[in-house]
Amino acid sequence: MSGAGDVGADAARVLARCDEVAALSSRPDGIERVHLTPEHAAVNRLVAGWMAEAGLRTWQDAAGNLCGRLEGPVPGAPALLLGSHLDTVPDAGRYDGVLGVLLAVAAVQRLRETGAALPFALEVVAFTDEEGTRFGTALLGSRALAGTWDPAWWSLTDADGTTLREAASAFGLDPGAVGDAARSPGELVGYLEAHIEQGPLLEDADRALGVVTSIAGARRFSCTVTGEARHAGGTPYDRRRDALCAAAEVVLLVERTARARGVIATVGRLEVSPGAVNVVPGRVELSVDLRAEHDAHRDAVWEELRAGAERLCAARGCGFAAHEHHSADGVACAPALRDAVRRGIAATGDTDPPELFSKAGHDAMALATLTDVAMLFVRCAGGISHAPEESVRADDVAAALDALTAAVLAVAADRATHPAPVR
Amino acid sequence: MSGAGDVGADAARVLARCDEVAALSSRPDGIERVHLTPEHAAVNRLVAGWMAEAGLRTWQDAAGNLCGRLEGPVPGAPALLLGSHLDTVPDAGRYDGVLGVLLAVAAVQRLRETGAALPFALEVVAFTDEEGTRFGTALLGSRALAGTWDPAWWSLTDADGTTLREAASAFGLDPGAVGDAARSPGELVGYLEAHIEQGPLLEDADRALGVVTSIAGARRFSCTVTGEARHAGGTPYDRRRDALCAAAEVVLLVERTARARGVIATVGRLEVSPGAVNVVPGRVELSVDLRAEHDAHRDAVWEELRAGAERLCAARGCGFAAHEHHSADGVACAPALRDAVRRGIAATGDTDPPELFSKAGHDAMALATLTDVAMLFVRCAGGISHAPEESVRADDVAAALDALTAAVLAVAADRATHPAPVR
Repeated sequence: MSGAGDVGADAARVLARCDEVAALSSRPDGIERVHLTPEHAAVNRLVAGWMAEAGLRTWQDAAGNLCGRLEGPVPGAPALLLGSHLDTVPDAGRYDGVLGVLLAVAAVQRLRETGAALPFALEVVAFTDEEGTRFGTALLGSRALAGTWDPAWWSLTDADGTTLREAASAFGLDPGAVGDAARSPGELVGYLEAHIEQGPLLEDADRALGVVTSIAGARRFSCTVTGEARHAGGTPYDRRRDALCAAAEVVLLVERTARARGVIATVGRLEVSPGAVNVVPGRVELSVDLRAEHDAHRDAVWEELRAGAERLCAARGCGFAAHEHHSADGVACAPALRDAVRRGIAATGDTDPPELFSKAGHDAMALATLTDVAMLFVRCAGGISHAPEESVRADDVAAALDALTAAVLAVAADRATHPAPVR
Repeated sequence: MSGAGDVGADAARVLARCDEVAALSSRPDGIERVHLTPEHAAVNRLVAGWMAEAGLRTWQDAAGNLCGRLEGPVPGAPALLLGSHLDTVPDAGRYDGVLGVLLAVAAVQRLRETGAALPFALEVVAFTDEEGTRFGTALLGSRALAGTWDPAWWSLTDADGTTLREAASAFGLDPGAVGDAARSPGELVGYLEAHIEQGPLLEDADRALGVVTSIAGARRFSCTVTGEARHAGGTPYDRRRDALCAAAEVVLLVERTARARGVIATVGRLEVSPGAVNVVPGRVELSVDLRAEHDAHRDAVWEELRAGAERLCAARGCGFAAHEHHSADGVACAPALRDAVRRGIAATGDTDPPELFSKAGHDAMALATLTDVAMLFVRCAGGISHAPEESVRADDVAAALDALTAAVLAVAADRATHPAPVR
């Protein structure tokens, strides 16, 4: 692109910034950066500096999201949002979310440096709490921006018993003002998010970038297996109602059923009570995370899983109960924006980029209730994510930066020929 | 027994005292009383008062065990030890250990009130930390008394990172003086312990009391299953190395193998890392507790289990490693003392009491390296132990008090006819 610096150098700077962000962690032995903590404040400060350097006016919104805006030809014009999130899972990698935010900052900087005349404003949004690590409910930042905040969330507690309301106040936010973070559809052109794939399909296909067709909606359940705590020595097998043996059967059932039915289901958390070496487990709490391309199929598989788990537990004299604590409908990417992403990737030389659906949730899901959304996926090594081994190639990051920049120009070209639809 | 009060009233007092002890707990919702805590100090004070009331001289030894002594005809004569422990597992019942201590106090009081002339002193020992709940290593109190204390234990840490040495000092003990708790064989006649069965065999046989033939030695292992933490949405099944799915197969293998080979094996603890709802588990730590009547059989089963677990984990691309952190050889009860227990039970009217081996560990195991040991088991409801539902019948407790008292007299009768063997 004429006027902008070398894309390879810009991509190298994006990667160096990912490293700088990774150093902002609550743990010395790895990366953990969660909602409303000192690390959250620090990462917002750090990235705000880069946004300002890119020519953006910055502010932290009422939910703790960091925003940066480059006005268009008319001040106050609707904005195309670019973004992702800066929070992490426990023991995280350095690219999930962060790469998308820093690609967005770099893309805006390149567009500004080229003097591209866009018919809209550009905003970069760095969301907080996409992962839900601290309070167990994901997408808090993007839901606040989407105007779908649920006041019941203020009573959510973290592992220390601190409520979300207390944590927000301590962070310097006014819980009563969270509605100020909400945007209205008329202010927006749409939302574009770049993100590592978090899966191996692009690598398997030997392609750097992909167009996301839809984002699978996850359902998450907290399940309880109830048996009877007994002395490990004195209790013969026919007297046992071992909650862990029953839970082990449930874990394997979840895997077997999901494989057979072509969905993705994971037991990521499992806690045993009383958890003593010489006591037969009396109770197990476990999580089930369930995703599929189509919501109806996913829901049918859950009913099958629940019935199977109840049968397995009953056969051991144990109880099984499930409580749904998260449910998101699948979200389709908007055809026009999705095509802009495709044209953006095509501008990098891959004229027929792979299309794939996202099995992971993203801020774009929350934004989809407010505006059109689309996503661009970047290849990651071995499909590994949510782990310190997350890795991306520098040339893929350069391609992603080119593609994202070109996708913004493609949206601009569409706007020039078609006026904004009324939503 | 002439001179002593009604045994039913004494048994009722034992049960009332078990309730009083149960109130000394670190948790409001159940019973937990562990080593070197305020509850440990409080229970020692409470039981010391009852010992004094029974005519015993009391002291807390250098390991935190509570001792009470009734001199025999000659001051300083060898003592027959009676006892059990006052500490608990997490969320415990009220009879495991406690009943044996309070039966011992009541038996000594009855013997004193009848003016029985015994050729030895009587001591009641209320051991601390039989369960190993706080520092993970069981029998600390009884091993100190047996003179088999391992100085490496001082570096054991509890869940908060406090070392055993720090906790002992904070409790008011002098770690350097722990050797003072050790007894020598010449000071002792033997050790008798009454305990709830913690299994259902007496109840199934419709009998109140049983003679213990031997105590199974447990081996305990900390096992680690190592897989790879990955994003729960983006990682297809053929790319997963799910440590929890592998661990679930290990849990079921342990159960299946133990049942088939006639041993008792339990996975009581299982912890998942990173333990997030949307992350494929990368690592699982689990415990295996293994018991059998014969040590060689137990050891053979362990080798079979370990090899099987390695195979199952390897098939999923996961690693399996096991570290043994506790091992106790099985202990046979001494024939003469065991016969005294049998005669004690016979005095209650059951002239052919059931004989059974203990699948649970007991302080008697540690004492067996020092002196002869024997045990008397008391029926408990449903075989339940290590749980709040532990329950005993009042008439069984009265029978146990009668039998323990008569067993002491039987030992005395043996000593009158056979001089003490030199050990």
